[in-house]
Amino acid sequence: MIVVMKSSAVAEDVTRVVERVCELGLTPHLSKGEYRTIIGAIGEKKPDTQQQLQQLPGVDEVMAITQPYKLASREFHEADTILDVKGVRIGGPHVNVIAGPCAIESREILFTVAKAVKDAGASILRGGAFKPRSSPYSFSGMGEDGLKLLKEAGDEMGMPTITEVVDPRDVDVVCKYADMIQIGARNMQNFNLLLEVGKTDKPVFIKRGLAASITELLMSAEYVLSQGNHRVILCERGIRTFSEETRFTLDLSAVPVIQERSHLPVFVDPSHAAGKRDLVPSLAIASIAVGASGAIVEVHSCPDRALCDGPQAVLPENFKKMMEQIRKVAEIVGHRVTLWGQEDTTTKPQASGGWAT
Amino acid sequence: MIVVMKSSAVAEDVTRVVERVCELGLTPHLSKGEYRTIIGAIGEKKPDTQQQLQQLPGVDEVMAITQPYKLASREFHEADTILDVKGVRIGGPHVNVIAGPCAIESREILFTVAKAVKDAGASILRGGAFKPRSSPYSFSGMGEDGLKLLKEAGDEMGMPTITEVVDPRDVDVVCKYADMIQIGARNMQNFNLLLEVGKTDKPVFIKRGLAASITELLMSAEYVLSQGNHRVILCERGIRTFSEETRFTLDLSAVPVIQERSHLPVFVDPSHAAGKRDLVPSLAIASIAVGASGAIVEVHSCPDRALCDGPQAVLPENFKKMMEQIRKVAEIVGHRVTLWGQEDTTTKPQASGGWAT
Amino acid sequence: MIVVMKSSAVAEDVTRVVERVCELGLTPHLSKGEYRTIIGAIGEKKPDTQQQLQQLPGVDEVMAITQPYKLASREFHEADTILDVKGVRIGGPHVNVIAGPCAIESREILFTVAKAVKDAGASILRGGAFKPRSSPYSFSGMGEDGLKLLKEAGDEMGMPTITEVVDPRDVDVVCKYADMIQIGARNMQNFNLLLEVGKTDKPVFIKRGLAASITELLMSAEYVLSQGNHRVILCERGIRTFSEETRFTLDLSAVPVIQERSHLPVFVDPSHAAGKRDLVPSLAIASIAVGASGAIVEVHSCPDRALCDGPQAVLPENFKKMMEQIRKVAEIVGHRVTLWGQEDTTTKPQASGGWAT
Amino acid sequence: MIVVMKSSAVAEDVTRVVERVCELGLTPHLSKGEYRTIIGAIGEKKPDTQQQLQQLPGVDEVMAITQPYKLASREFHEADTILDVKGVRIGGPHVNVIAGPCAIESREILFTVAKAVKDAGASILRGGAFKPRSSPYSFSGMGEDGLKLLKEAGDEMGMPTITEVVDPRDVDVVCKYADMIQIGARNMQNFNLLLEVGKTDKPVFIKRGLAASITELLMSAEYVLSQGNHRVILCERGIRTFSEETRFTLDLSAVPVIQERSHLPVFVDPSHAAGKRDLVPSLAIASIAVGASGAIVEVHSCPDRALCDGPQAVLPENFKKMMEQIRKVAEIVGHRVTLWGQEDTTTKPQASGGWAT
Repeated sequence: MIVVMKSSAVAEDVTRVVERVCELGLTPHLSKGEYRTIIGAIGEKKPDTQQQLQQLPGVDEVMAITQPYKLASREFHEADTILDVKGVRIGGPHVNVIAGPCAIESREILFTVAKAVKDAGASILRGGAFKPRSSPYSFSGMGEDGLKLLKEAGDEMGMPTITEVVDPRDVDVVCKYADMIQIGARNMQNFNLLLEVGKTDKPVFIKRGLAASITELLMSAEYVLSQGNHRVILCERGIRTFSEETRFTLDLSAVPVIQERSHLPVFVDPSHAAGKRDLVPSLAIASIAVGASGAIVEVHSCPDRALCDGPQAVLPENFKKMMEQIRKVAEIVGHRVTLWGQEDTTTKPQASGGWAT
Repeated sequence: MIVVMKSSAVAEDVTRVVERVCELGLTPHLSKGEYRTIIGAIGEKKPDTQQQLQQLPGVDEVMAITQPYKLASREFHEADTILDVKGVRIGGPHVNVIAGPCAIESREILFTVAKAVKDAGASILRGGAFKPRSSPYSFSGMGEDGLKLLKEAGDEMGMPTITEVVDPRDVDVVCKYADMIQIGARNMQNFNLLLEVGKTDKPVFIKRGLAASITELLMSAEYVLSQGNHRVILCERGIRTFSEETRFTLDLSAVPVIQERSHLPVFVDPSHAAGKRDLVPSLAIASIAVGASGAIVEVHSCPDRALCDGPQAVLPENFKKMMEQIRKVAEIVGHRVTLWGQEDTTTKPQASGGWAT
Repeated sequence: MIVVMKSSAVAEDVTRVVERVCELGLTPHLSKGEYRTIIGAIGEKKPDTQQQLQQLPGVDEVMAITQPYKLASREFHEADTILDVKGVRIGGPHVNVIAGPCAIESREILFTVAKAVKDAGASILRGGAFKPRSSPYSFSGMGEDGLKLLKEAGDEMGMPTITEVVDPRDVDVVCKYADMIQIGARNMQNFNLLLEVGKTDKPVFIKRGLAASITELLMSAEYVLSQGNHRVILCERGIRTFSEETRFTLDLSAVPVIQERSHLPVFVDPSHAAGKRDLVPSLAIASIAVGASGAIVEVHSCPDRALCDGPQAVLPENFKKMMEQIRKVAEIVGHRVTLWGQEDTTTKPQASGGWAT
Repeated sequence: MIVVMKSSAVAEDVTRVVERVCELGLTPHLSKGEYRTIIGAIGEKKPDTQQQLQQLPGVDEVMAITQPYKLASREFHEADTILDVKGVRIGGPHVNVIAGPCAIESREILFTVAKAVKDAGASILRGGAFKPRSSPYSFSGMGEDGLKLLKEAGDEMGMPTITEVVDPRDVDVVCKYADMIQIGARNMQNFNLLLEVGKTDKPVFIKRGLAASITELLMSAEYVLSQGNHRVILCERGIRTFSEETRFTLDLSAVPVIQERSHLPVFVDPSHAAGKRDLVPSLAIASIAVGASGAIVEVHSCPDRALCDGPQAVLPENFKKMMEQIRKVAEIVGHRVTLWGQEDTTTKPQASGGWAT
């Protein structure tokens, strides 16, 4: 940390800061400028130290020079984390598309969509059984019955599955049926839920909150990692801005920014960001072009009768075209799309760093 | 709802919309303009109807003309809701200041602060036992031990107490000790938590999420109200914007906007919005000037050693001055500050509409 | 400036930074931490120095520790600036309300409104002759004819006048008729226009841009001050955020934040922020409560026929009530409303620091 | 327009609205719902009509159903506009990269960079002679001397040139030397400047303001188009949001959104959005992937000594690699990169609609 004193600070103020820095177990390092004194505080900082120093008389600002996350940081773990979920490799050069309906509504629709997305090249099946809805009067998911259908569909198609959990009390039942757990944007800072999924052995897919900074997203990953679950995937899904043309503003710059700071795989959700299906394919392609490890896309066979978020669901035929372009773009940027069932001989497990699988 | 067709829509598109409107149990009402056809859909609309119609061929836009909340709406309940919590009246012309430390850290600090804020005129005591923190390494509260101290302090000072709950599994223990339950900004859309507190008999104080629209805040209130708990208080606490000068941007316009739409009392939290104690008193006074039913303010006797959010905690002596100004400003705008222990003879229960107490 | 090196930086990187710091005429000051080296750069920094150092190999971040503005800063000029415009004193403890129609539309409406606002206690008359409109097909003001009417009305009522200028080519004509010049939010960073008004002897009223930080607002003031015109007033008028309930989000925290950093008077424009007349009085009162030096309010005698921004114009009778409350609130926070024609014996010119009038 | 009455509106309110609608030259069309009456107003609406109706007693909301721009709209001009600037075709399937230094600083740097970007495949040369800078103390460009150098470099490389104009008084001198005129983000709503460039015969490249909606961007285009200059190009360059990780948040969804509404070519500026050179190439590639007609990229041969925005300038060698990937991605999405000097036999002028030069 660096403590910048005000130009009006007196010698006594400086002494007080130096004493407090020592009391906190840090080593002070003084530097007198023309107008201001600056005090470096060297050593292992505790979380609330910065807030405390900031309040001492004569202090103008306290600047942190290390990130507040550790396990999520690339400084701590240099190589890209590559996960293996039932044989599907995620992260590093692998590009995966997760697809399926927003909510699981019926056996028929789920299986129709699952088959379509698998045939088109998706490697992981999504479907919501617990849906967070802004209205208490909206359809909120089929619950455990939905989870059973999802497992059945995943087994039949030979695809790993992912579904959202919104309540710490549901973590067990979700783990019983699904292969990956999704933490939705509205729960990115539901810290008890993060601690709970951190205790499971399932990969956790965390969506960025609609007003979350990238540091906050990485802190939420840190919550899961701190519990011993090292298989975390991050997902940009649009942030809330003044722009009303799309449901949220997809922040594609977040992909390379996160990749520079963290070893965790980064996905993009163009469906929730756009809110309109016409925009989804080109945003998904751009996500792969910018270097993401994959995209999560909502597909529905009959979206104008969907019980949730139909307007953003892509039709199966458009999803297929999109997948063809994604495959080509992935290659141009040095990545490759994972195709289920296809032998992956090029990438060796050792590429994954210490934590893979 | 009003369905606006594209200028390129053909007769078949219009027919399809009309049929779907009928199928949804609504009555269509056609209106042909020079360039576009508009179809009114009259009747009780279900939550996902708008999204479904929006996707039919030839449809440009579907506009809702009623709000998605009912119980929270002033159309449903015209008079201001006035609550009674252990004799403290909240809402309508009553102005209350809730004060106390951010987190309960020790018996000594809590009691010192409680006494100071009571003497200055605060009517409700706050203190956090379960703290949502962005870092897994930060102090996260004393839990049940903290709740016991809070109850003890409230009893000794004769003040009702309020504390935050962050996990549906903790609702029972919180209700055992506290008089009011706070839902923090990060949990405003933790829908299962809202349902859980909706089943209790404690007043629920809901803070606006940092990226929540006012409609979304009222929908979260609707979650609680829909469970039969009619005692809900709303709180503006700053939204996340590009402006970095304060921790969040306090949106004081939200106060009259909510009051126009809803009968529920509206408070303001200047402490979390500002993030700096020097700004808190003038923002608290402005909150009362704009017509809020109260403010919630963090006070600490030794903030540079606080374990949580010290920089925004007001010192007891400044809190006292602030309270004096608040009392005067409340009168100018036709409100009055509730003083604990003082007989309230001016406002009669009947002012509260059907739901009071 | 403080240059923070990456943890991976090598000795050669540090040497390169130190050399460049010297080359820029600054004195380097090394400090080695456990993980990182920090280099203080002491001396007078040029504007682009920070950007240049930031790019050297091994550099993680370059942090400025002084503000980029000087003349606008309170460090430079400690006492509040108090202006005198035709006998009306602005800034310090003086509270002034500027009022009038959005656009000058006709002699009749202008004079009706001017009389009403003067009678209610407004001390400065506003009216737009050059209106920036987002559509090229909207009414864009009466130009010089409007300016003549404004001057005539100001003379008749004995009120100084203010009007907006949008084009450097119009500065002369505006100065010919008006007593104060307004720079609108959309022109806050029209730097050539700022330079032009900086060369005049008229007070300049600068509105904060809709996406401008406070630092940027003060930099725009610096443009005017740097030309020798020391009479600048700043105005918060709402920023653009995700919130759609009001036209813009009024950022009242900006008032005390600016006052801490700058000696210039700060006003608030609740009319453009709210966009709805019902919200304007309570926001104007809150502006005075938070400590602003005044408010600028649009008033219209027949707003549903106004050619510009009618929905936000307050009716004369509501303006009068608002003024009464403003007067009382100003006193509570230690300020006083300027009343035209009233002898101001309490505040002496010397309070204004070196620059007054 | 659709006028939605409040549920509390009485018959008299409805009559008043109907009368005003007629008075405005529009045809009213009544529709009574269960709770509310809706009045369609059919005919050619004037710009301020909506604001006026909105204020009548009993009116809840007035919704526009047509866009406020005409000439910029795809409804008015269905085919993509394709421009020809000195033989370079812009828009439709053509992809062009505009490159060069941020500011023109010296003959040597300009020519070095110009040669490098031309060799790599850029088709248009950029360079700023009038730089809008937030500080009055920063380098603000070489003015006419810079323009001369730019023209010389363009002539030598055989590339059309583009440069920014910030003052209506400089439009003539800019037109004398440059082939295209840029309107910067901070001047997107400098309406007099837009009118002035609308009177020239040079293509106008308008950058989206940092807080501008897409509708506002198209309205600014409308200002230029309304003066008879039909050659307008739009550019997404990042918007201001809460996210501080990049200088601005690049809103790539804006590209397909604008393309759906307007026939004008859409470019992307990844340099100003990112603010860091490492992010620029991947964002430029993503821009082409999402379907943009081109990108504008800052390149500098020695960016750590640049006088303006060095941190975001790409080095020539990285620019070259980026161009190779852009060429491949353009093909995948059905576009093709314009290469200077190469015969363009595939696209015929008739594709351009009525306006292409």
